[in-house]
Amino acid sequence: MMKPKRNGSTRSDKDKLIELEESSSDDEHDSFTKPVATSEGSTSVNADGIQRQLTGVYNTDPTDDIPPLLGNDAPFGQTANAASVSAQQLSEPEPVFHLRSRTAAVNAESAQAAIEQDTYESLDYEVCENKLFLEEERRWLSERFSLRKGIMRWIIFIQIGIITALIACVIDIVIETLSEVKYNILKKSVDENTPMRQESSDLVWPYLYWIAWSIVPVLIGTTMVTFIEPITAGSGMPQVKSYLNGVKIPRIVRIKTLAVKTIGVITSVVGGLAGGKEGPMIHSGAVVAAGLSQGKSTTFVKDFHIFKAFRDDHEKRDFVLGGAAAGVAAAFGAPIGGMLFSLEEAASFWNQNLIWRTLVASIISSFTLNIVLSAYHGLQSLTFTGLFNLGKFDQPLTFNYYELPLFMLLGITGGLLGAAWNSLNTKINGFRRRYFRWKLARVCEAVMVAILGVTLACMMIYLINDCRPLGNDPTAYPVQLFCEDNEYNAVAALWFQTPEATVRALFHDPPGSHKILSLTIFTIVYYILSCLTFGLNVSLGVFIPTALVGAAWGRLFAMLLFYTFPEASFLHPGKYALIGAAANLGGVLRMTISLSVILMETTCIEPSFFFPLIITLISAKWVGDYFNEGLYDIQIEVNHVPVLPWEPLPQYKGLTAREILSKPVICIKLHDSAQYIYDVLSSSNHNGFPVVDDVKDDRRAEGRVRGIILRSQLIVILMKSLYVEKKRFWLDETSIETFRSMYPRYPSIKSVRRLDEKMNYTVDLEMFMNPSPVRVNAHDSVPKIFNIFRALGLRHLLVIDNENRIAGIITRRDFLYK
Amino acid sequence: MMKPKRNGSTRSDKDKLIELEESSSDDEHDSFTKPVATSEGSTSVNADGIQRQLTGVYNTDPTDDIPPLLGNDAPFGQTANAASVSAQQLSEPEPVFHLRSRTAAVNAESAQAAIEQDTYESLDYEVCENKLFLEEERRWLSERFSLRKGIMRWIIFIQIGIITALIACVIDIVIETLSEVKYNILKKSVDENTPMRQESSDLVWPYLYWIAWSIVPVLIGTTMVTFIEPITAGSGMPQVKSYLNGVKIPRIVRIKTLAVKTIGVITSVVGGLAGGKEGPMIHSGAVVAAGLSQGKSTTFVKDFHIFKAFRDDHEKRDFVLGGAAAGVAAAFGAPIGGMLFSLEEAASFWNQNLIWRTLVASIISSFTLNIVLSAYHGLQSLTFTGLFNLGKFDQPLTFNYYELPLFMLLGITGGLLGAAWNSLNTKINGFRRRYFRWKLARVCEAVMVAILGVTLACMMIYLINDCRPLGNDPTAYPVQLFCEDNEYNAVAALWFQTPEATVRALFHDPPGSHKILSLTIFTIVYYILSCLTFGLNVSLGVFIPTALVGAAWGRLFAMLLFYTFPEASFLHPGKYALIGAAANLGGVLRMTISLSVILMETTCIEPSFFFPLIITLISAKWVGDYFNEGLYDIQIEVNHVPVLPWEPLPQYKGLTAREILSKPVICIKLHDSAQYIYDVLSSSNHNGFPVVDDVKDDRRAEGRVRGIILRSQLIVILMKSLYVEKKRFWLDETSIETFRSMYPRYPSIKSVRRLDEKMNYTVDLEMFMNPSPVRVNAHDSVPKIFNIFRALGLRHLLVIDNENRIAGIITRRDFLYK
Repeated sequence: MMKPKRNGSTRSDKDKLIELEESSSDDEHDSFTKPVATSEGSTSVNADGIQRQLTGVYNTDPTDDIPPLLGNDAPFGQTANAASVSAQQLSEPEPVFHLRSRTAAVNAESAQAAIEQDTYESLDYEVCENKLFLEEERRWLSERFSLRKGIMRWIIFIQIGIITALIACVIDIVIETLSEVKYNILKKSVDENTPMRQESSDLVWPYLYWIAWSIVPVLIGTTMVTFIEPITAGSGMPQVKSYLNGVKIPRIVRIKTLAVKTIGVITSVVGGLAGGKEGPMIHSGAVVAAGLSQGKSTTFVKDFHIFKAFRDDHEKRDFVLGGAAAGVAAAFGAPIGGMLFSLEEAASFWNQNLIWRTLVASIISSFTLNIVLSAYHGLQSLTFTGLFNLGKFDQPLTFNYYELPLFMLLGITGGLLGAAWNSLNTKINGFRRRYFRWKLARVCEAVMVAILGVTLACMMIYLINDCRPLGNDPTAYPVQLFCEDNEYNAVAALWFQTPEATVRALFHDPPGSHKILSLTIFTIVYYILSCLTFGLNVSLGVFIPTALVGAAWGRLFAMLLFYTFPEASFLHPGKYALIGAAANLGGVLRMTISLSVILMETTCIEPSFFFPLIITLISAKWVGDYFNEGLYDIQIEVNHVPVLPWEPLPQYKGLTAREILSKPVICIKLHDSAQYIYDVLSSSNHNGFPVVDDVKDDRRAEGRVRGIILRSQLIVILMKSLYVEKKRFWLDETSIETFRSMYPRYPSIKSVRRLDEKMNYTVDLEMFMNPSPVRVNAHDSVPKIFNIFRALGLRHLLVIDNENRIAGIITRRDFLYK
Repeated sequence: MMKPKRNGSTRSDKDKLIELEESSSDDEHDSFTKPVATSEGSTSVNADGIQRQLTGVYNTDPTDDIPPLLGNDAPFGQTANAASVSAQQLSEPEPVFHLRSRTAAVNAESAQAAIEQDTYESLDYEVCENKLFLEEERRWLSERFSLRKGIMRWIIFIQIGIITALIACVIDIVIETLSEVKYNILKKSVDENTPMRQESSDLVWPYLYWIAWSIVPVLIGTTMVTFIEPITAGSGMPQVKSYLNGVKIPRIVRIKTLAVKTIGVITSVVGGLAGGKEGPMIHSGAVVAAGLSQGKSTTFVKDFHIFKAFRDDHEKRDFVLGGAAAGVAAAFGAPIGGMLFSLEEAASFWNQNLIWRTLVASIISSFTLNIVLSAYHGLQSLTFTGLFNLGKFDQPLTFNYYELPLFMLLGITGGLLGAAWNSLNTKINGFRRRYFRWKLARVCEAVMVAILGVTLACMMIYLINDCRPLGNDPTAYPVQLFCEDNEYNAVAALWFQTPEATVRALFHDPPGSHKILSLTIFTIVYYILSCLTFGLNVSLGVFIPTALVGAAWGRLFAMLLFYTFPEASFLHPGKYALIGAAANLGGVLRMTISLSVILMETTCIEPSFFFPLIITLISAKWVGDYFNEGLYDIQIEVNHVPVLPWEPLPQYKGLTAREILSKPVICIKLHDSAQYIYDVLSSSNHNGFPVVDDVKDDRRAEGRVRGIILRSQLIVILMKSLYVEKKRFWLDETSIETFRSMYPRYPSIKSVRRLDEKMNYTVDLEMFMNPSPVRVNAHDSVPKIFNIFRALGLRHLLVIDNENRIAGIITRRDFLYK
């Protein structure tokens, strides 16, 4: 990753250009020792990168060049002995190295953010077509190999579908079984301890039971998340979204993450927190895809030596796309929705074959889920129709034209409530980040929220008298409590099941199953609870609680209206619960396309009901967008993940490449000394270096661009000693495999031993570099280069002048924070 | 369009470089008259472009440089007086103009093809960001204008949805009404003339009636298509597909085309030809979109002066995408299918906002269709559920695991039958093109096929005795014929309705509605009929007949199997008819993603039945792909439309840009003389010219690339006399509107008057050219540049050397025919 601010000292001393083409020396330790120290323009500045303004507010004036604060020197051990010329006044242009920084305001938070930022790198979606790659390609050109690769790719996609579904099944079955046990015990305890019936009893017992059944799983889950793998907190959707957008997030697709996430989501849902299992399932799909496609596991230090050809960011990302889609398909039983979800998140690098494979993975996934769950539930003759999360409506949903304004009104309400929820949740999480830094505090917090939830639920059940006759019984655990015989407590029915089952109940309960008062209070309580929950250190999705809140107030809306106009027979409460859920989801998540299809598939409604759904979702999205962004986008922004939007940001519209590029660029000559490369790698942490030739007097930054080389490649070159002088030793056995075998965790430069006798050797980058980096002109407009950058999934974009000399470099961050 | 072979004489005589920056002369006729004739390297070769090998077989050796046949000179009037140096031996490199041709084989057919090829040009999907454009952008940078443009875009998309649906309604209602009249008359006539009942009667009468009811509409339709607008023949899908791929096809999106197509499809379906209305509906959607978005009509010479900002290829293509999606949505009642159809055809230039608008257009379209048709059919209280073309299945479709191999078998059969159909149809059409060149012959042919269809139907009805009891009556026009009272003739039931209604009948008729013999013969007859029909000069889609054939043999398959194993109760004939239809459609069209979703939406089946559908479609597609391409792709190939595939063609895999580029490139200097520009435009028909500077001695091809200018822009410059010397006259009133007002039909160079006194003026291209053309290096690999070309929707790709000097140019055709 080319860092936004070029910090760190860049040095060009002991720089030797050795003409290799003519030299054919056999002696390793011979005449390549004349160090031509040309240390000119060496700069060393404040290396911790805190000058960048990273607090989420974009610097609106992109030409605002303020000299950086200078202070502590670059903390790189290797540069200590280097001639580190402290740059005093670099604000005026300087021929070779020119420093550019955009803000003088330094505070603790932005420094923290900058450090966090270093953890995110771009994926290399662009294929590096160097000589080694082309050599391999040529070997593969025989139709047969290409076919074999194609078949392997299909096999992996099918496996991704199956395994993702199996994980989803495990999560689903375990949650269901444990919840059954839990609520049966609670029901029995309530029945036994209701004071009116048995003298010796006290309702404190079921309350304590319930608390215990909440605290224990939540404690397990939050402890694992907090102490083992903190990245598993939350739904994982923002992370998957960022990954698909092209940002490498550390540890996001590891097996350990998957394990913690699976246990985390089971415990949290069983513990009764206001969350769902859908987000984590999608994350699981992504992990499965990343793991399967690489044929090796770093966690288990096991390499199966298969699928080696797929070991690069480009291929891996395509598989992760399929995995995320399979996850959605498994979570919602919505194969098309899964495909569209991937599409909505990552459409820029799309092609037909990929859509097609993604769709197949989704279908396989939802099919596998269907088979397994049908078998588990012992459905008759395995015909498994309608086994969906949110239940199928008995009758086709219909609507009248005069209902459309109502749907729009619900959409607007959803947009308002969603925007408020997002803003409230962001504030709570900001508060959390500031004051709950201690890990144990995060654990306690989760337990407290669990206790709060149980307490609120108990108070509602205890205080509200909402008895309904048994009979057309929509609840699995009817609790009688203070009701008459043959009646059950409708409030307890809302609470005595998983949130998902409650959504299903609100969609499908017959009219008159609930009291207006109880639904009102339930909506408020759940709104607040879900807002508190999302951001705890537990693995939980936000889809189900959001849908639940929406379904509750949607149903409430229909009931209120029906109470006012008793003759309005069209006010089917289930229908309005669905519309309310859609509105709330639209207001919180703003993922309109895939949401509408997912809702359609998961409830199996008719295509003709698509229109009201879309009307609602559009209203919710537009109203919500007026106030803030979608929840996932807020999360991404809060974490300073450099996710590229669909269009360039508005303030970039009138700019040109010249105004956003980063310079000076540290270049490497086509034939450069190991010493220089080593020093560059040690003193800077950029990830891509333009390769130049036609260099006069070591002014590399004035050379003509020949290609680009990545930090990871340079490190491999140094580690394997791929020097020109030793060519005869390594040439035959070096192939693209040499580089690929290190993927994805390349060692740091610090792990490269600095052997002084090797430092005079020369590296010929001709065969390693990417000879065709994408280049643009300095006067090209930002919307244009943004389009190129996004459509091609680039990591580095070189800006050249009219003579093909480097003018600057543009990376992902330059489109976001300048 | 940069032509594949650089033919035509290119001249550089009377070429004057006038230094304008210093000159401030006010007199128009002053000292700019010193002609520095530097006529070097002028070449003139065979201009009719027949050297290219264009017979559909790709030249496998891309470096095969054979000197072209030389003979007749360039027939451009303006070049007659020019010093046309006949190029004798151009196979060796020549400093400035170098000719490159790839085949020596010239025959009548490839010449014809080459001439046809000239009719296809690329769309300019790339935005030309010249100074004028940026000026306009700056003016628009106020948030308000951008918002206004966004709202206008939404309004247009919504309008596209509504109007497309209304046209679809008109087509649907007219066809239904006329068919009702037709089949009622026929039924009455059969009833009256059955010999067994009335002595004086003869079955020849109904036969003649039927013939008349076929010939008359077909004659009207085919005459209109043949004589008014031949481009409307067929379904229009290959054309829409090509357009979305980025190829401009003349007259494809005109209002006249829409009118002829509408009438054509109505007459053909009413006439009883084996075709459907779906393809034409999709084409209608595209025309509506193109027309609406431009706010003017060339056919009616009417400019509404609205939506001017959308007048370029880029915007227009996005709207057409929405229109095609709306067309699919209207044709099948499948909004998601519509969106996916557009996606499947054009995913490379995709972004989220476009998906979103496309989806909304689709939904609006299917909603409008639903409203109008519900109102027309007087459905109760306008709840309009299940108003779909192919009918909703009464019961949810279910399947058992052991049926999956059966589905796969059906898929394979569909693939085989589809491939055979495609190959047969291609042969028939080839035969047609060769022998039926006379327009009247095409008309007669259509009439003959209509008569053949009626005759075969009558023979089937007459000869096969397939009587079924009336009662659970699946047919609208039960014909008794020779059956007992209370019975009807089941064969007549198959024929006495539109093909669409027959598909519906085959899906939903109760088991036992048909005889094995009658279905077998029906399948064979319809297979041949549909094969004969597609390619006639009538407007008809291929979806419905293909689905019909598939439904027939699918149902037949289930009946045969049930006959063999009477205990196999799972053999629901409707289900197998659906699977058969899917298999046949997959085998013929190979559009798997959208097809599966369309079938799912149009029959409203459960998501759980998606899996069998996909299994079937994949089998059909893979088996079919083994033999040939999909029908639309074959059509596109036969017409030599340069449609880019998803991946580079296999034979290009190992190549680099150097091996496919076209050269020499005709360049224009940044400040060039009007004379030179005029001559270049007259003598070549390329569409893009690199703009260079740093030119020594007028060796333009050695200059450094500064930008690219299009033929259309140069013509406008010459027409409007935008010369440097006259800057004060035009500078204030020239804006991007000057160029846009001519879109899309720029005049030819011949319409520019050659005023000799103006020829000495200079044109400064700085403000008109696109300063940021995409450039690649000569050593870049073809897969890489193909990816760039496709992802960015380019028309010209400049290949430069390491010093930013032009090495060649790559256009669409270079990826296809080299």
